Amino acid sequence: MSNKVHVGSTEMDEGLRKWKVFEPSEKIKKIPKRIWDVGKEDPRRVIHALKVGISLTLVSLLYLMEPLFKNIGSNAIWAVMTVVVVLEFSAGATLCKGLNRGLGTLIAGSLAFFIEFVANDSGKVLRAIFIGTAVFIIGAAATYIRFIPYIKKNYDYGVVIFLLTFNLITVSSYRVDSVINIAHDRFYTIAIGCGICLFMSLLVFPIWSGEDLHKTTVGKLQGLSRSIEACVSEYFEEKEKETSDSKDRIYEGYQAVLDSKSIDETLALYANWEPRHTRRCHRFPCQQYVKVGAVLRRFGYTVVALHGCLQTEIQTPRSVRALFKDPCVRLAGEVCKALSELADSISNHRHCSPEILSDHLHVALQDLNSAIKSQPKLFLGSNLHRHNNKHQNAVSQRNRENDVSNKTAETGSRQGQSGAVSLSSFRTDTSALMEYRRSFKNNNRSETSAAGAAGERRMLRPQLSKIAVMTSLEFSEALPFAAFASLLVEMVARLDNVIEEVEELGRIACFKEYDPTADDVRSEKPANVVISVGAAE
Amino acid sequence: MSNKVHVGSTEMDEGLRKWKVFEPSEKIKKIPKRIWDVGKEDPRRVIHALKVGISLTLVSLLYLMEPLFKNIGSNAIWAVMTVVVVLEFSAGATLCKGLNRGLGTLIAGSLAFFIEFVANDSGKVLRAIFIGTAVFIIGAAATYIRFIPYIKKNYDYGVVIFLLTFNLITVSSYRVDSVINIAHDRFYTIAIGCGICLFMSLLVFPIWSGEDLHKTTVGKLQGLSRSIEACVSEYFEEKEKETSDSKDRIYEGYQAVLDSKSIDETLALYANWEPRHTRRCHRFPCQQYVKVGAVLRRFGYTVVALHGCLQTEIQTPRSVRALFKDPCVRLAGEVCKALSELADSISNHRHCSPEILSDHLHVALQDLNSAIKSQPKLFLGSNLHRHNNKHQNAVSQRNRENDVSNKTAETGSRQGQSGAVSLSSFRTDTSALMEYRRSFKNNNRSETSAAGAAGERRMLRPQLSKIAVMTSLEFSEALPFAAFASLLVEMVARLDNVIEEVEELGRIACFKEYDPTADDVRSEKPANVVISVGAAE
Repeated sequence: MSNKVHVGSTEMDEGLRKWKVFEPSEKIKKIPKRIWDVGKEDPRRVIHALKVGISLTLVSLLYLMEPLFKNIGSNAIWAVMTVVVVLEFSAGATLCKGLNRGLGTLIAGSLAFFIEFVANDSGKVLRAIFIGTAVFIIGAAATYIRFIPYIKKNYDYGVVIFLLTFNLITVSSYRVDSVINIAHDRFYTIAIGCGICLFMSLLVFPIWSGEDLHKTTVGKLQGLSRSIEACVSEYFEEKEKETSDSKDRIYEGYQAVLDSKSIDETLALYANWEPRHTRRCHRFPCQQYVKVGAVLRRFGYTVVALHGCLQTEIQTPRSVRALFKDPCVRLAGEVCKALSELADSISNHRHCSPEILSDHLHVALQDLNSAIKSQPKLFLGSNLHRHNNKHQNAVSQRNRENDVSNKTAETGSRQGQSGAVSLSSFRTDTSALMEYRRSFKNNNRSETSAAGAAGERRMLRPQLSKIAVMTSLEFSEALPFAAFASLLVEMVARLDNVIEEVEELGRIACFKEYDPTADDVRSEKPANVVISVGAAE
Repeated sequence: MSNKVHVGSTEMDEGLRKWKVFEPSEKIKKIPKRIWDVGKEDPRRVIHALKVGISLTLVSLLYLMEPLFKNIGSNAIWAVMTVVVVLEFSAGATLCKGLNRGLGTLIAGSLAFFIEFVANDSGKVLRAIFIGTAVFIIGAAATYIRFIPYIKKNYDYGVVIFLLTFNLITVSSYRVDSVINIAHDRFYTIAIGCGICLFMSLLVFPIWSGEDLHKTTVGKLQGLSRSIEACVSEYFEEKEKETSDSKDRIYEGYQAVLDSKSIDETLALYANWEPRHTRRCHRFPCQQYVKVGAVLRRFGYTVVALHGCLQTEIQTPRSVRALFKDPCVRLAGEVCKALSELADSISNHRHCSPEILSDHLHVALQDLNSAIKSQPKLFLGSNLHRHNNKHQNAVSQRNRENDVSNKTAETGSRQGQSGAVSLSSFRTDTSALMEYRRSFKNNNRSETSAAGAAGERRMLRPQLSKIAVMTSLEFSEALPFAAFASLLVEMVARLDNVIEEVEELGRIACFKEYDPTADDVRSEKPANVVISVGAAE
């Protein structure tokens, strides 16, 4: 079973495009294949179609079979109508529509009888005027309340049915005296239709919106992970080649996330009506899934911007990129690993292990930070003795920052998730500051700046070949790379929000505790999301 | 009239949130205000509600008035049903539903009569089996084809009505002999219902989806412009203050763009059915509006990333940002101006002037580029004599780039819009290269590098106060700013796609030619979108 979703717009325009590309004759040739593909993509569609066919046949028997018809009569047609309108793809949608229909009919019936009761004693003309006025007022009022967002979201169909039933009963009551009897009979047949629908959607191969929501959330996390992986691997590719393949992979990964808002909301709405998840937990946390979807969208925007770094015309030379390849690849790998861990966690209904998510990530962040900081010293080191006073300014400024970071460290904690990344970056700042001070003192002590510079060069000897490249690196050339790195860092900040919401989801949905003994299962998974370029290290 | 749109999800969650925040008692107190607000936000909602009320009353008269009832009879109830179901908010939606309903009914009727004709001669039991089988097969097949994206998008409602009518007729025909007569009468009443709906939606205060689509597109362009303006103005704010006000302004500006996919598609679908725009042009270019919406979304992702630069914990010091304030503010101002010009162009149905869109923008890009390039020379200038050989490498590398840019300049032209930005950036590269070479030669000629450096310093004298700050600028501190600047540049690249699609829209929709004599009207508009910080220059 695939986890395709059937609420609309995502696949539509794609389908439409496919139809428009072909010539008419070719279009007709493609139709059988397209029809076949619809079922192949998601076999549940075939099941649903058969379910509708069976339900309709069952309900037609009320009319076709003599003994049944004798009891129910021509009102059986209302049962047919109910089945056509109410039986939807997922159990939640069916329940939502069925209950809306039931509620709307009941309220409309009560109101109509009340109005009939009031109008009963008046004369024929007066009664007609009264009914006409009631129809106008109720019609306008019901239409107006459909615009209220809350009503529109939950009870739109119910209000339509209310209006329909109310008008049918009120208007008919003017000519027919036995409206009560008609309503009574219809109510029975509608109840039979609803019963068949509920039986079919809840008990025969049920399709749950909640499950779809769950699966799409997992799929979105995996898609984002694939996107980032492909992005970073293409950015640090040795040779510049047109990889429309990897471009597709990047695009596909995040596109589903970006356009997920309406799908998520519809699925959550239907999932809200489903009774299924009461067994394990209080109720299905559909609103939390919507929240996870929202933070994933925000995360996705950063991935789009990262993808944008690959597409801009102004590019950092590949040789320069290579300087920062290792830390970037590692950081992105950690982000991907975290996303996959989150996907696994949701997929297996278990909490994720917080230390896996944070520790390696922070180390990778530190590495990237120090890799970036180590480079400008190539310039700074050689003319450090000239700008001593200015560097003291710089150090004092950094000290101020350090104070701030200490204060932040006192107030922040692991629980305050959103603070964690900023903390780590400050911590990295501090350690880099120590290093900076050390080298600064060394330079001051040995008054010959050349020796100091030489000492620094010795540290950097393994990178000597890179220095030639580095000296030709101007700020403006490094600019696009800086954007890339900055987006990676921002991604970590956004990841924190994602982790927070997924943990909240775990709390609300009563996920299993994280079991470290199941490590063998889990540790296999992240292996295939480690960035492929990383393997070339 | 506001340009609120009524296709669902955007306002929903907001409304839901508002309902959930309050305590029950407070919630009830708020209800009258909320109901009032719904109409206040968009008075067309009140008009639509009244239209529905009037239509229902009119259609009820068929039943209530003696002479009319004599002719039509109890089938009048079908007219009531049609009005309730078909009359929608916009003319396009009403037409779409009405025609779907008509088409579905016709096809279903024909098929049902064909099946009745085939089954007519057989015995009672055989006939029941035949009808049951037909119901099953048609039911399953119709449900299945609803999953085909093209059908789902355009004819979903029609298929439901087809299934409903087919079942009603086929099943009824088993008991009732005069199905033809029933169908005939019903067809009349349904036609009356449809007629009233069409009259009301097309002629009485009509509401056009195409107009909504047009207005929301203009609104999205303006919103993005406001967002960028607020973003840049906050980034270069002197003092760090918590401006939740400007944050809201930024967020509101782009949020509508990000979530616009399903709204755009629904509006375009309905607009497709509207006959209104045939007067001026071949037909309403709704698909092009959807395309504009798509490029605006992609543009919006960059704005989100830009907004992210304001929110990250690691920030470039304000003093450093101030160094680049002027070119950044100017560039962003030009982008905003271009967006407003596009909004004006669409809003007034006229082509936009290409030279306004590109020239100032390219100057601003060049300024930013050279501002960024001028800074590293503070380091480079002083030790240029040491790295002469390395700089020659750099120059030769730049020469190669220059060759490439020349080739690109030969093949590219203004028409190939997407190349324009890359061209400009290459051009900037070239001019920067010239400047670079000049200073390089100066340095070589006057062997004393101090004089060269002094000459360079003289050029930079107005910025002397900034140098103190600049020397303390490390690459890692500049990193977040680099991301900001890079995103601004990328925004320009994306803007080019937006311009391209809007120009295409102008071509398809037969916009008026751009009239330079109308300058006085137009030139007033961009004045209020120039970034407010820019005024302090």
